[in-house]
Amino acid sequence: MRTAPPPHGRPMTPLERFGIMLPIVQAPMAGVSTPALAAAVSNAGGLGSIAVGATDAAGARAMIAETRARTARAFNVNLFVHAPARPDAAREARWLAALAPLFRGHGAEPPAALRSPYRSFAHDDEMLALLLESAPPVVSFHFGLPAADRIAALRGAGCILLATVTSPAEARLVEAAGVDMVVAQGWEAGGHRGVFDPAARDARLGALALTRLLAARTRLPVIAAGGIMDGAGVRAALALGAVAAQLGTAFVLCPESGADAGYRTALAGPGAARTAVTTAISGRPARCLANRFTEWAAEAPGDPPDYPLAYHAGKALHAAAKAAGEDGFGAHWAGQGAPLGRAMPARELMELLRRELAAA
Amino acid sequence: MRTAPPPHGRPMTPLERFGIMLPIVQAPMAGVSTPALAAAVSNAGGLGSIAVGATDAAGARAMIAETRARTARAFNVNLFVHAPARPDAAREARWLAALAPLFRGHGAEPPAALRSPYRSFAHDDEMLALLLESAPPVVSFHFGLPAADRIAALRGAGCILLATVTSPAEARLVEAAGVDMVVAQGWEAGGHRGVFDPAARDARLGALALTRLLAARTRLPVIAAGGIMDGAGVRAALALGAVAAQLGTAFVLCPESGADAGYRTALAGPGAARTAVTTAISGRPARCLANRFTEWAAEAPGDPPDYPLAYHAGKALHAAAKAAGEDGFGAHWAGQGAPLGRAMPARELMELLRRELAAA
Repeated sequence: MRTAPPPHGRPMTPLERFGIMLPIVQAPMAGVSTPALAAAVSNAGGLGSIAVGATDAAGARAMIAETRARTARAFNVNLFVHAPARPDAAREARWLAALAPLFRGHGAEPPAALRSPYRSFAHDDEMLALLLESAPPVVSFHFGLPAADRIAALRGAGCILLATVTSPAEARLVEAAGVDMVVAQGWEAGGHRGVFDPAARDARLGALALTRLLAARTRLPVIAAGGIMDGAGVRAALALGAVAAQLGTAFVLCPESGADAGYRTALAGPGAARTAVTTAISGRPARCLANRFTEWAAEAPGDPPDYPLAYHAGKALHAAAKAAGEDGFGAHWAGQGAPLGRAMPARELMELLRRELAAA
Repeated sequence: MRTAPPPHGRPMTPLERFGIMLPIVQAPMAGVSTPALAAAVSNAGGLGSIAVGATDAAGARAMIAETRARTARAFNVNLFVHAPARPDAAREARWLAALAPLFRGHGAEPPAALRSPYRSFAHDDEMLALLLESAPPVVSFHFGLPAADRIAALRGAGCILLATVTSPAEARLVEAAGVDMVVAQGWEAGGHRGVFDPAARDARLGALALTRLLAARTRLPVIAAGGIMDGAGVRAALALGAVAAQLGTAFVLCPESGADAGYRTALAGPGAARTAVTTAISGRPARCLANRFTEWAAEAPGDPPDYPLAYHAGKALHAAAKAAGEDGFGAHWAGQGAPLGRAMPARELMELLRRELAAA
């Protein structure tokens, strides 16, 4: 699984040292990426990713085991490292009251109260123990960084560490923390923005500008993300100085993804041309195909509860609407390149990306 | 001035037919780009641009004559094609009242009333006559498209036509109008966003996603713009399928630009890391270095008057503040790549870009 030395005599990146042969990372997408998808990407020479942020240590153990059963190659396990939600009963009650007509329009009632549907890795000792025991080849952080002792422990277990950043300032924190590589998440990217502090002003740096700023000014290797859908996009990321590109939306239409039929239909249709960033679905900014939820959110009264408290309501609303035959409240995460999606098995998509990259 | 055929046997682009040897367009920047800057860029093998949107036909005549005196090569003349402002006395009075404390803080009074500081090419017959007479090699449109008869007349005069777009939908309008090329202006770009309808929802497409979407789905050649500052960025644009890259902010620190000392100091300093899109300065969304004006705008009461009525107030406020020694109200347009700016003569910058592009 070791590769030839990289071109131009530059040092090997951590991914190359792990035997990654194509500079392509399949983005971790909680609820959408699966062990089957990750393994297919890794088996094709890229870096597949599973996301365990929305499950617990037992769930993560099962996902890691399934991934290992499907591939002998390196893969990535992604963690949510958000500041835990600050409960605010009044704000939560206002939010549920605002959502209530949407629930009732689908024959359901909103939850009586909101709870966080999962824990942050920042405070999840069971997840840490599981990771130290299973030692996945790559571990990545989203929404921030865990404490220094957790980073040191994971490094001690042999894990290569990645962290999503959306700005040079966040990249400096990652560099200082001893993480190995940064994922430069541009404004185009689908799903949750990895901003460390959702209350801070978001510079909304586009993928082209962010990747170049980080590649030119950071010592860490950069993985570019946001709006990249094909080999031309991967080639552009490399031209900007990235060592690899991370693609998420490009893999959602693969049969191996966990996307449901409504999500696939929306993503494959003309609606792929319009995405929106909203905090209404989960409590944190995330880019989604424009749908009834984002339309409602554009006029929503007040701010949602903290992430992931709001996600409890968002998931419940989607479930209620879907049960009534309405797919327009799904968390249909998608990046700005969504119209360029191709529906095919992950192995075929990786082969296509390889050919496009060689031709670009 | 004719070049060798392009690589890979693809057809020559309109710019190549015009003898452009480097796939680099210096962005038109009204008030900042100058005939000297445009000529230096064109003489170095790129496409220099002057912007005549903020002047009248007599001013444009002088700028075109000066550019021609400095270069025998092709250059671009940029026009503003905005829908004229709809006067709204009450809104203008509210806006002036809101700005009044800022004027008075610098020992000045706001204008008694607002007028548009310049005309749209959509309705400027003198400008059309001047262009038909002088027939610049390239003419570009910003903020929209002129009527079909104006486009036909300019084409008849031998002008290659470009139009800025920010979305695939705008690109389809440009294609249908018979314009030769699109400038894909990404969210990262400094200065005024070229959105055709500022009241419509702006998808804020990043340069990477927009360029790839247009290159993959439009028949017109694409010039990529937004956040591109160096040869690596130009190479990335080409990898995405663009035929050239347009750089604006990269040229502001050239001695040939019209930027004043306050603008240069701000752009060369740590403040280059933070830009903001605001409508407060001119009435249309534009990306600017964060300064006292954008800070005020973030909390501004109500919407500004239509473009370019609001710009009358914005320019007057900057003049008053600058006279009092305060540069923080300048229209310091800059893209998200601003920290990568290099201060050097345009000829040297073009040579550096050429070397970087060859190495990337």
